[in-house]
Amino acid sequence: FRDAVEDFSGRSPSRFAVIVFVLLIVLFTFLFSLPISSATGTSTNLADSLFTAVTVICVTGLSTVDMATHWSFFGEAVIYLGVQIGALGVLTLASILGLVVSRRLGLRSRILAAGEADPSRTHSGVAGASQAVRLGEVGGLLATVAVSALVIEGGLALLLFPRMLIDGIPVGTAALQSLYYSAMAFTNTGFTPNADGLAPYASDYYFLTVLMIGVFLGSIGFPVIYAFSRALRTPGRNQWSLHVKLTLVTSVILLGAGGILYFALEFSNPATFGPLNGFDKGFQSLFLSTMTRSGGFSTIPIDQLNGSSMLVTDMLMFIGGGSASTAGGIKVTTIAILFLAAFAEARGNDQVQAFRRRIPVDILRLAVSVVLWGASTIAISAIIILQISKASLDDVLFDVISAFGTSGLSTGLTASLPDAGVYVMAATMFMGRIGTVTFAAALALRQRRQLFQNPEERPIVG
Amino acid sequence: FRDAVEDFSGRSPSRFAVIVFVLLIVLFTFLFSLPISSATGTSTNLADSLFTAVTVICVTGLSTVDMATHWSFFGEAVIYLGVQIGALGVLTLASILGLVVSRRLGLRSRILAAGEADPSRTHSGVAGASQAVRLGEVGGLLATVAVSALVIEGGLALLLFPRMLIDGIPVGTAALQSLYYSAMAFTNTGFTPNADGLAPYASDYYFLTVLMIGVFLGSIGFPVIYAFSRALRTPGRNQWSLHVKLTLVTSVILLGAGGILYFALEFSNPATFGPLNGFDKGFQSLFLSTMTRSGGFSTIPIDQLNGSSMLVTDMLMFIGGGSASTAGGIKVTTIAILFLAAFAEARGNDQVQAFRRRIPVDILRLAVSVVLWGASTIAISAIIILQISKASLDDVLFDVISAFGTSGLSTGLTASLPDAGVYVMAATMFMGRIGTVTFAAALALRQRRQLFQNPEERPIVG
Ligand SMILES: [K+]
Ligand SMILES: [K+]
Repeated sequence: FRDAVEDFSGRSPSRFAVIVFVLLIVLFTFLFSLPISSATGTSTNLADSLFTAVTVICVTGLSTVDMATHWSFFGEAVIYLGVQIGALGVLTLASILGLVVSRRLGLRSRILAAGEADPSRTHSGVAGASQAVRLGEVGGLLATVAVSALVIEGGLALLLFPRMLIDGIPVGTAALQSLYYSAMAFTNTGFTPNADGLAPYASDYYFLTVLMIGVFLGSIGFPVIYAFSRALRTPGRNQWSLHVKLTLVTSVILLGAGGILYFALEFSNPATFGPLNGFDKGFQSLFLSTMTRSGGFSTIPIDQLNGSSMLVTDMLMFIGGGSASTAGGIKVTTIAILFLAAFAEARGNDQVQAFRRRIPVDILRLAVSVVLWGASTIAISAIIILQISKASLDDVLFDVISAFGTSGLSTGLTASLPDAGVYVMAATMFMGRIGTVTFAAALALRQRRQLFQNPEERPIVG
Repeated sequence: FRDAVEDFSGRSPSRFAVIVFVLLIVLFTFLFSLPISSATGTSTNLADSLFTAVTVICVTGLSTVDMATHWSFFGEAVIYLGVQIGALGVLTLASILGLVVSRRLGLRSRILAAGEADPSRTHSGVAGASQAVRLGEVGGLLATVAVSALVIEGGLALLLFPRMLIDGIPVGTAALQSLYYSAMAFTNTGFTPNADGLAPYASDYYFLTVLMIGVFLGSIGFPVIYAFSRALRTPGRNQWSLHVKLTLVTSVILLGAGGILYFALEFSNPATFGPLNGFDKGFQSLFLSTMTRSGGFSTIPIDQLNGSSMLVTDMLMFIGGGSASTAGGIKVTTIAILFLAAFAEARGNDQVQAFRRRIPVDILRLAVSVVLWGASTIAISAIIILQISKASLDDVLFDVISAFGTSGLSTGLTASLPDAGVYVMAATMFMGRIGTVTFAAALALRQRRQLFQNPEERPIVG
């Protein structure tokens, strides 16, 4: 059996990933539909059970029921377990797929390089690696990911726990809630364990800052966390990879731009940041900007934002977080590479470059594919939801992009959709979660060498 | 002076194009602000005069005043002249820039090819061409474009004139209106000379079909029209270029997809196609789909469309028509190349191909640049208009994309904006019109050869 799994997962790792996700969702749909899972002891209907299973496994954070009151303690435990499995699963699968892809491409480019004079191409090769990823390696990777998650979530919980005690929450509840909050932050899910959500902590900057750190670490991606931890263990001259630099720089730019835009656009909105003083406005703007990366916590009613801020949020949620992270979206490196390509074009450079490194052409094509696929998913989903709900584009686009980008912020539309709309939203969350991870890898894996070259011709563009 | 113009336009043709457009807009703003231009004999204010000048010169078709009743006969004549100059100007400038770019690139790729073994690269060179485009050539091109426009508009007017006589319109009015309608169709402007617009012809399929043909011919682009006319003159074995094939196939796919979607989404909308029978629904859906290419005529109240249909329209208007055409948008070849790149990636091909031709990498980068620039323009404009008007995203996105794509369909929002919003919309129309033409060319022109190659590194995408 082990051989069979290894063989299948090695030959088509992206299909393997999709099947694992589907099986997890089926299992959790079953668990959530059990009477024992609901607070009232009655069975939850299929649409809500399935939606909750998808939102938990995909760590999206959207909901069609009140997540803090609908479920029993058993149900909450299933949710806690689900987001951990979902988040670790995504991190691990993404890293494995990254490994497979880089090996295949490595091998491929070494083969190509052998036939070419240009020595710069050999840089992308991983020396002497075989193509198959063994199950043993997967186990090692999973362990590393799990330990990282455990350490970070434990640290966050330790920071939150005393604060909750000071706020007068009983020790047992405080322990459970600090674990729950830390998991929801690091996995970028965004559910709250208490019925009134973040409201009690809306001006508790210590609490909110810990959540922001958790969300940021979760959304930055495992490759970057790994680079951080290596730098901590072996201080001194560490070479940061292009991926780490691109992810960090783009994330910081997006965080800052989002914060500034929210500050400006909501400055005089009485329902959001209008009544706050300057510092509070700034902090809450930065908090909201961080949560679009795809944390999903919010201290303000999202449907009270100005339409302009909602459009800004749409764009930030579409971009999402780092590759191989618990965040969703098309990923920050994807948008960075598109802009780098446009800058290269504007400056007349032949190559796309960043940090004195050349980015190969197939990466640009992959980025274009990911964006097109994301935009198509969102367009189809939005058209269906608009037709079903006849709601405004403001709300529909926001909730659909939130589902795709697994952000979990909501205008309230998702909770009010009929069953048909709930299934469409569940499908959108599923596409958003597994899509960028496995689809991109599946595309990259099926590289075929073309021996026959057609003549070149230049159509006019623009 | 002639030498000076030649020198400047040769060195920086895109800046030359922008300056020509700005001067035309200034001149027409002055003409529209004259008391003689308005029906009441009073001066029109600056915001409306400027907006009308931009919408006319950019053949957008949006308006802040009632175009059929606000202006005097003199004003209408200025409008007629303006759209002709605007349309011919765009066609000519785009063709000139295309010529310049293809020559520069031709020269450049011949230089590159000389240093390489791969013979396939020489295919893109234009043999023995010098870099500068002489003013004489521009004159010749302008003449060709003007004659084509005259022939097509004349033909359209001859088809419309008898119909108007049959409808009982006096001969003089019918002659003027048929000329006006044919100009508005071929230039893809979309203004109507009569106060009640297309309403009298809303079920006149002969009239609407002539308009559709006019809009389609205008939106397909001069290179394609030229290929058609050559094929008519010399029947037999004509080689259609990749650009012609890509433009035609993509246009037909978009027309068909738009028609089918409108038919399905508006099937039971009582305010639009609901009351019509099956054939009428089909015809009107196809008419609406054609007009998004960027005709701008409409037989139904646009703000009564379902939100789903409006989103479909947003996407079609964003794509727009063919390159070097009177239509706007990012152009059909641009979107085609992005999808071809994604398909190539999905099938594991090393090269982007279409119709047995290889599409070079820099074309993909140009397409990415054009889309990013278009999306950024629309995003910034939409955020500002949302903040100014506090209108719904449905209406704001629609009118902003209509302005960018010079489509001219409107939910009515543009006419109700305060002056600040009117200036933003005017800027959006200007960016949409000159942008894809001159920006893309400007980018492509400044090709610089890079001698130093940085080492390659592969960031993770998606
Ligand atoms: K989330
Ligand atoms: K138009």
